[in-house]
Amino acid sequence: MAQESCSCSCARNDLPWEGRGTDLPIAGCRFTLYPMTDRYIDIILGALEKTDTSYVWSETDALSTVYRGRLPYVADAVKALFINAYEPGVHMALEGQYSKGCPGDVSGDSMLDKTGDAPNVSSYEGKHFPVNCKLALYPMGTGNYVDDIAKVWYMAQDKGLNPTTIHYATRIGGDVQDVFDYLEEVCALMDASETVSHYILHYTINCNSPTKED
Amino acid sequence: MAQESCSCSCARNDLPWEGRGTDLPIAGCRFTLYPMTDRYIDIILGALEKTDTSYVWSETDALSTVYRGRLPYVADAVKALFINAYEPGVHMALEGQYSKGCPGDVSGDSMLDKTGDAPNVSSYEGKHFPVNCKLALYPMGTGNYVDDIAKVWYMAQDKGLNPTTIHYATRIGGDVQDVFDYLEEVCALMDASETVSHYILHYTINCNSPTKED
Repeated sequence: MAQESCSCSCARNDLPWEGRGTDLPIAGCRFTLYPMTDRYIDIILGALEKTDTSYVWSETDALSTVYRGRLPYVADAVKALFINAYEPGVHMALEGQYSKGCPGDVSGDSMLDKTGDAPNVSSYEGKHFPVNCKLALYPMGTGNYVDDIAKVWYMAQDKGLNPTTIHYATRIGGDVQDVFDYLEEVCALMDASETVSHYILHYTINCNSPTKED
Repeated sequence: MAQESCSCSCARNDLPWEGRGTDLPIAGCRFTLYPMTDRYIDIILGALEKTDTSYVWSETDALSTVYRGRLPYVADAVKALFINAYEPGVHMALEGQYSKGCPGDVSGDSMLDKTGDAPNVSSYEGKHFPVNCKLALYPMGTGNYVDDIAKVWYMAQDKGLNPTTIHYATRIGGDVQDVFDYLEEVCALMDASETVSHYILHYTINCNSPTKED
C-alpha cells in the first residue's frame, strides 16, 4: 500500500506528477511565517539574513517556503528562522508541515552531502520565550498508526508540554526551544519507526497572541 | 481499520481523549486568519462582525478558531470571514483544516438542526479578487485513497484552477469564489465517497502577496 498511496497528491504514474518515490533520507518542511505587523517583510527578510540556510535546499513561492535535506538541518533552519524573527510584543505565527517518505517524492531537491553540527545553533541557543502550538500527525502506510500517535502524545506529556486534545489537533505549549525540539523528535521517532514509511506533521506555533486563555 | 485509526490524535480508549466516534454529519474547519498589518485585530474583529456564525458551533483559542456543523454552513462561514476581512493591498492568509469523520470525534459541539440557505451568501456574492492556494488532502481508512486524490486533482484542472504539484502539497490559484467553492466540493466528494470514512484537507489561501512568481 505504501508504494501506491500518498497523502500529498503526488504519486500516480498516469498523472502529471514527477515523483516516483525515493529511499533517500530526504526530510522536508514547508512553512510560512506570519508576523502580524506592517513590518512583516522586514521581519521575514531580517530573520532570513540571520539564518544559515546553506545546509538545506530551499524554494519560496507566493504562499510558502520549503526546506529539504537531512532532518536535523531542516529542523535547525526552521527553528532559527522563527527565533530570529521574534520581536517582543509582536504577534507572529509559523504554519508548518514536516514530511518524509512520500512515495511520490523525488530524489533531488536536497542537500544530503552535509554532515556535522547544525549551522544555526549559536543563533538561537539561550533564547527563550513562551509559545503556543497545535499539531496533527498523519503516519501513512500503516494500519496501526494510532500507536505512533499515542507515543507522540505521551512524549509531549513527559516533556511537560501539557498536551490537550482539541477538535482535529493536539494543543501543546511551553518554551520555544522545547516545542521546536519536540516537533523534531516526533519526526525522528517516525523516521525510526519500522511501520511508518511516510508521515506528515502539520503544526502551527505562535507567540505574543493577544487572545488570553483561561 | 477506520474505527481504530485517527490522524488527529484522538481515538484510543486508554488515552485521556474523550471522543468515541460519531456517525452524525458533523464537519468542521479549524482555521486562523493572518492579516499582515498592525491593524490585524481590527480586521479580524470587523470581519467577524459582518459574518453570521449562528449556523455553526464555534470555539476560539490563542491559536485558531474551529467551526463545526453541517458542511455547507461551515464552508459558508469560513468563506464569508475571509472575504469580509479582505482589504485591497493588505496581504492576508488563511490557514485551514477541514475534517469530517474522525473516529475519535464527539457527537456534540455542533449545530445540526439548522436547515435552509447558508446565511452569509449575500455578504460575499459578487465579490471577486485573485488568491493563491495550496492544499493537501488526507483520505483516511481506505487503501485506495490515491484514487480520491486523483479525482480531486482533475477536478481542480476541470475548474480552471491550474493545479501544479509542489513538494508535499498541490498549488492552485484563481478567483476567491472559485477556490473556496472548490475546497467545499472536495469535502463534499469525500463525504459522498463510499470508501472514505474520515478525511482531512489542509489548505492555505492568501491574497495580495508581495512575492511575485514567474
